[in-house]
Amino acid sequence: MKRDFSKGAAWMRGEVVPVGDATIGVTDWGLTHADCVYDVVPVWQGAFFRLDDYLTRFEASVAAARMDVGMDRAAIENALHKMVAASSLQDAYVAMVAARGIPLVHGVRDPRACANHFYAWCVPYVHVIAPDKAKIGVEVHLSSTTRRIPEDSVNPLAKNYHWGDFTQGLFEAKDAGFETVLLPDHAGNVTEGPGFNVFALKEGRILTPDRGVLHGITRRTVLELAVEAGLTVEERALPVEELMEADEVFLSSSGGGVTPVARINDRQFSNGAAGPVGLQLRSAYFARLEDARFRTEITYT
Amino acid sequence: MKRDFSKGAAWMRGEVVPVGDATIGVTDWGLTHADCVYDVVPVWQGAFFRLDDYLTRFEASVAAARMDVGMDRAAIENALHKMVAASSLQDAYVAMVAARGIPLVHGVRDPRACANHFYAWCVPYVHVIAPDKAKIGVEVHLSSTTRRIPEDSVNPLAKNYHWGDFTQGLFEAKDAGFETVLLPDHAGNVTEGPGFNVFALKEGRILTPDRGVLHGITRRTVLELAVEAGLTVEERALPVEELMEADEVFLSSSGGGVTPVARINDRQFSNGAAGPVGLQLRSAYFARLEDARFRTEITYT
Repeated sequence: MKRDFSKGAAWMRGEVVPVGDATIGVTDWGLTHADCVYDVVPVWQGAFFRLDDYLTRFEASVAAARMDVGMDRAAIENALHKMVAASSLQDAYVAMVAARGIPLVHGVRDPRACANHFYAWCVPYVHVIAPDKAKIGVEVHLSSTTRRIPEDSVNPLAKNYHWGDFTQGLFEAKDAGFETVLLPDHAGNVTEGPGFNVFALKEGRILTPDRGVLHGITRRTVLELAVEAGLTVEERALPVEELMEADEVFLSSSGGGVTPVARINDRQFSNGAAGPVGLQLRSAYFARLEDARFRTEITYT
Repeated sequence: MKRDFSKGAAWMRGEVVPVGDATIGVTDWGLTHADCVYDVVPVWQGAFFRLDDYLTRFEASVAAARMDVGMDRAAIENALHKMVAASSLQDAYVAMVAARGIPLVHGVRDPRACANHFYAWCVPYVHVIAPDKAKIGVEVHLSSTTRRIPEDSVNPLAKNYHWGDFTQGLFEAKDAGFETVLLPDHAGNVTEGPGFNVFALKEGRILTPDRGVLHGITRRTVLELAVEAGLTVEERALPVEELMEADEVFLSSSGGGVTPVARINDRQFSNGAAGPVGLQLRSAYFARLEDARFRTEITYT
């Protein structure tokens, strides 16, 4: 029987299966304690983009979470290759996940004594912001009531599934007619949004938060592209007031690259359109996706 | 073929299955965004305890999360009954869960447009603190580095799977030789631990935090039992300093009732043993589990 990979594929316990058949147990702490770390590497035109960088960050997240999935980098890379090849997807969103698993002894609630495990899945490429909106500049809600989970509660550097603050913020944003949300921290600095980092351009300088946020690989790509374009970059705390006084604002995500922001709450940027620097970096990002230096080609069978 | 329910049962999409066969999809936002609300009702000697109270809180959590699982209270209650009866478990930990599900359209990241769903599972009764330790008084680590996720990030009243702070705290506790952990908030008040509320006894008054914590049903039972025992109860912010100066400390959980605390960090309580009021409330709790007024008997088939 031919299996249907049209919606994507997954690698589960050594086997590649249709993504719809990939599941985890309802008692897995990966679910019941949101105790997973993960990463998402884009596949673009038949190649992984910056695969080594994503794998390095994933390994750092796994180590920070004190998990051991019993697979080395070569085994993980092999699983991702095999899975994407089976899916036939040329452009894909590829998730790799380490989950805590279940306690080795029923009822023993010790995170050190669980059967950690790895799995992966891929689906057709996801744009965190729809491309038609990204091109004209997206409208963003900056929450005044929901704060990003602080880093002394959950480590944001270990990419994780604690999205309750983002979900609450997304409800606020959607209800108010915005596409997505940005969250401030408890000190009044902007942090990040659901699936993206944020940047402000002010008088030729690119500012982006350095603390309380994921250090995104796309964020790194954007900073590299900005430097190559002759801009100055500053990674530091970014007060909300300073964000709102920027000349341009844009977002970065492995799911869609660079997205210019046309509006945050009542404040328009670039006269309510996509700003020129944001658009320039967006183009530069998509060009970089095709740059052989950053590509790991997939052998489709 | 006879199915093996010895490890528990689950109710999934209208069917009762062995708990080991109960899974959710790896792309379900219930997992990838930790976007579930849940509740846990104990079954004791063949009856649910305070089932109506647990169902009321579960419904409040579902409403707070803006989910609609398409089942009313009678349908949920019926699912729980059927599942526990099939499991044959007389003493059980019964979880009911509402999950966000997957977006109705691939790539559309709107929490309002997902296929929410309900499921449930039960396993043999879980003691959050092992009974042998609970009887002699448990040793607890109060974290000085990890803070409870604040309520303006994730609503603690909607019982949820955001346990990253608890997991980090449990690692700290286990590494230092403690059984479990208590987390302070960012203002220096104690909040709760992984699966339990906390109480301090000081000069005949029972103090327990009222904000930034789950309002546990067992917490409510303990407060009721305390009042019946002639104690004064105060629900309010509980500074760490005040906790550490208490005459006795104890914990409450649907998984094990009342657990006296013998030590927090370097501070011994009740001379390093279980305190008399904690033990009295522990006995009173187990007696209440057998009180017909609070029981909903299960008809095993």
